[in-house]
Amino acid sequence: MGGLIFVGLGLAGLQDLTLRGLDAIRSADVVLAEFYTSRVTDASLADLEGLFGKKVRLLSREDVEAHGDEIVREAKSKVVAFVVAGDPMTATTHHDLLRRAEEERIPTRVIPGISIFTAAPGAAGLQIYKFGRTTTLAFPEGKYVAESPYEVIRENRARGLHTLVLLDSQADKDRFMRAPEAVELLRAIEERRKENVVLPDTLLVGLARVGAPDARVVVAPASEWHSIDLGPPLHTLIVPGTLHFMEEEALARRRNGSPRSV
Amino acid sequence: MGGLIFVGLGLAGLQDLTLRGLDAIRSADVVLAEFYTSRVTDASLADLEGLFGKKVRLLSREDVEAHGDEIVREAKSKVVAFVVAGDPMTATTHHDLLRRAEEERIPTRVIPGISIFTAAPGAAGLQIYKFGRTTTLAFPEGKYVAESPYEVIRENRARGLHTLVLLDSQADKDRFMRAPEAVELLRAIEERRKENVVLPDTLLVGLARVGAPDARVVVAPASEWHSIDLGPPLHTLIVPGTLHFMEEEALARRRNGSPRSV
Repeated sequence: MGGLIFVGLGLAGLQDLTLRGLDAIRSADVVLAEFYTSRVTDASLADLEGLFGKKVRLLSREDVEAHGDEIVREAKSKVVAFVVAGDPMTATTHHDLLRRAEEERIPTRVIPGISIFTAAPGAAGLQIYKFGRTTTLAFPEGKYVAESPYEVIRENRARGLHTLVLLDSQADKDRFMRAPEAVELLRAIEERRKENVVLPDTLLVGLARVGAPDARVVVAPASEWHSIDLGPPLHTLIVPGTLHFMEEEALARRRNGSPRSV
Repeated sequence: MGGLIFVGLGLAGLQDLTLRGLDAIRSADVVLAEFYTSRVTDASLADLEGLFGKKVRLLSREDVEAHGDEIVREAKSKVVAFVVAGDPMTATTHHDLLRRAEEERIPTRVIPGISIFTAAPGAAGLQIYKFGRTTTLAFPEGKYVAESPYEVIRENRARGLHTLVLLDSQADKDRFMRAPEAVELLRAIEERRKENVVLPDTLLVGLARVGAPDARVVVAPASEWHSIDLGPPLHTLIVPGTLHFMEEEALARRRNGSPRSV
């Protein structure tokens, strides 16, 4: 009897993996991994194989999106562990794979992973209950820049809510958007739209490598971000809405970088 | 040199704990735990002590909220691991404790945990990008019922967004709101407000023990919830907004309970 088990690896190194996830991987017949929707900071395929004690087959975007039926077919007779960065169900592609397996009545299981959706608000010192809809800022394609993130931020701010802005990550091309680049894109949209969503003095929270020992959090107005270096990816941005005084103080303590770490 | 490390235990059993969390707990000088803001399904204090290989001091609501300064004082000279259910930074109380430590310039660290914020959308087959603000439905106090969750759901639905509704959990009184009770409360508010937010045919997703091997997901209209038994707590509710066809199909496959599990 086979099955398809989605396992989230979390954000940084291999240390974010849960005991449940490790156990499932170790007892699976086949281990597949994809790192093109996101990637785990500071972990190589060799590291994974070392921890799991077995071979890991690395899948490309095409393997998953064009040949997902082959993964599902393999899961009919073997227990397949499909490991991914972060939480498995935050990527649409994985929902699609789960759907195919469910339709074929293959037993499935989702083992959640540490996710930027909860880790970023916590690292910033902001209340997760005050976040509106999340948005993703994409790399411009030629001259075209998708303005929907600007609209999501505007709607959230109008209701006093914070916005988690995920930054485009094309891991298969080793291309990861950095926080200063994201701020520049938002400012350029502001120049066109002029709806007062991201002004020069709008306070923005930039986060890098959340979950890793060298994670960084910096709070600064939009006008300063061109000269801020958060170090290597992955980066994330938060556009705060109305701040509770406790949140205001938390951001103030992060104005010149993260607080001291154990 | 001391420090205060927040460790998230996740949702179910002890298997949601990350390798990073386990490592931090095992090398801490002191291990404190609180389970009044939430609790871990199917785990006792003895289980924790068995896994950690050391004593765990269980804290009451008063220990944390009225005597948080004592925790911070202890963290000045010793490395204190403070373990909690779910993700540590989804509870306001923990933000307050982090603030006190940061203000005293005590080194701190937050080790994220598996959280209902990402696990529930995934288990329901809904896209996390389409969730608006999260809300918490509280037990009525006498005749008073807080209507803000109804308003959050209304606002989210007006924008086509789903709402994660966390249900009141008073773990120190062993009192946990169940999904049918939550639906009844929302229907009672609807009767008063009549703003067409939760009608008898509104499809609702109830989730129980997310993350545990016996987790359940049931999709049913509001009118049917009085006779649905999801089993023991913790329960969570999702009020869907506008559904993408893939989400619609995922909910249809959960109409009569969760899909087959590995």
